[in-house]
Amino acid sequence: MTRGRFITLEGGEGAGKTTAMRTISEWLSRKGREVVITREPGGTAAAERIRELLLDPETGTLTPMSELLLMFAARQENLAGVIRPALSAGTDVVCDRFTDASRAYQGAGRQLGDAAVEALADLVHPDLRPDLTLLLDVPVALGMERIRGREGGPDRMEQSRPDFLERVRQAYLRQAEREPDRFVVIDASRPLPDVSAAIETALEAKWS
Amino acid sequence: MTRGRFITLEGGEGAGKTTAMRTISEWLSRKGREVVITREPGGTAAAERIRELLLDPETGTLTPMSELLLMFAARQENLAGVIRPALSAGTDVVCDRFTDASRAYQGAGRQLGDAAVEALADLVHPDLRPDLTLLLDVPVALGMERIRGREGGPDRMEQSRPDFLERVRQAYLRQAEREPDRFVVIDASRPLPDVSAAIETALEAKWS
Repeated sequence: MTRGRFITLEGGEGAGKTTAMRTISEWLSRKGREVVITREPGGTAAAERIRELLLDPETGTLTPMSELLLMFAARQENLAGVIRPALSAGTDVVCDRFTDASRAYQGAGRQLGDAAVEALADLVHPDLRPDLTLLLDVPVALGMERIRGREGGPDRMEQSRPDFLERVRQAYLRQAEREPDRFVVIDASRPLPDVSAAIETALEAKWS
Repeated sequence: MTRGRFITLEGGEGAGKTTAMRTISEWLSRKGREVVITREPGGTAAAERIRELLLDPETGTLTPMSELLLMFAARQENLAGVIRPALSAGTDVVCDRFTDASRAYQGAGRQLGDAAVEALADLVHPDLRPDLTLLLDVPVALGMERIRGREGGPDRMEQSRPDFLERVRQAYLRQAEREPDRFVVIDASRPLPDVSAAIETALEAKWS
């Protein structure tokens, strides 16, 4: 059995990930692929509980290292419960954020550095990396403006200052430069139809 | 300012840790020491939320690696919020379980192995180890019998089979053999007053 394709979607707040997830999974379905969609942190009941804890403003301050450990605990659950079983069965997996998000948010945004993130990646998934990572890139100011329109107000992670979000954005772009074979950077400041078209072009280029 | 003393208490289920915690802190207070008591997982609001998640039977199955990552997330919070500030202020800290519990429960009990535990210990507290660790040792069958009398029934961690608890016990004893300068093994199968007396003897021997 050929292993399924592992596609991850990355990007800052307000980059349009929800629509992009749909675009990716619909493209795969049109090609006759079985698709599982998941998100991080989340994917399983236990991982969603970790997600709640991470995003709930009432949790209060977490040290960057704890945030990182919780992210990897959720990731481990998602890998064991959803991602690995699907890939082994030949099903494609589209994941809304993965370890690149830890590099960007905890490593760079929270200034924890790369070493801790890489040590945990080595523990939790030494054998697995995405086949394709689509990075929805949007300037911080535009992303924040888009978020402001959302119901319910910002969650704990979104209550972040612009300099934090700028470090996140730059870390994503650096990672994309470091791994050009895996990453495709999508300019997500454009109108949604253009973004969707760019995503489909990237998928065609990889698996035409 | 001299750093406070860092004392950890370890042992399986039904070993009598609650009484022992009191014995240790009362002994320190009698010697005129400032004492902070904490427990793992727990100690801060966020860490107690992680504890709930770990102990709630409704969380369901967690992979051993996730359990370990959650334990270290709670540990990191307890270190940052309680343990390190107290020790720096010259206050003694008595902690109900610490990293030796991860070695025993996740490393040996859940058969995850030592390497992952040591990698996380290196990330989270490369600079800190307990000055004294009291291990309350009790045969598994006796510990389980003591637990059966408790109100509320067993939590998720206590719903463990005897072979698991036997691996935990043996791992604790091995760790004590490996670090005889740090560990004192207390025979906790005896009546509580005898156990308390043995604990006081160990404390006198260390800091008379």
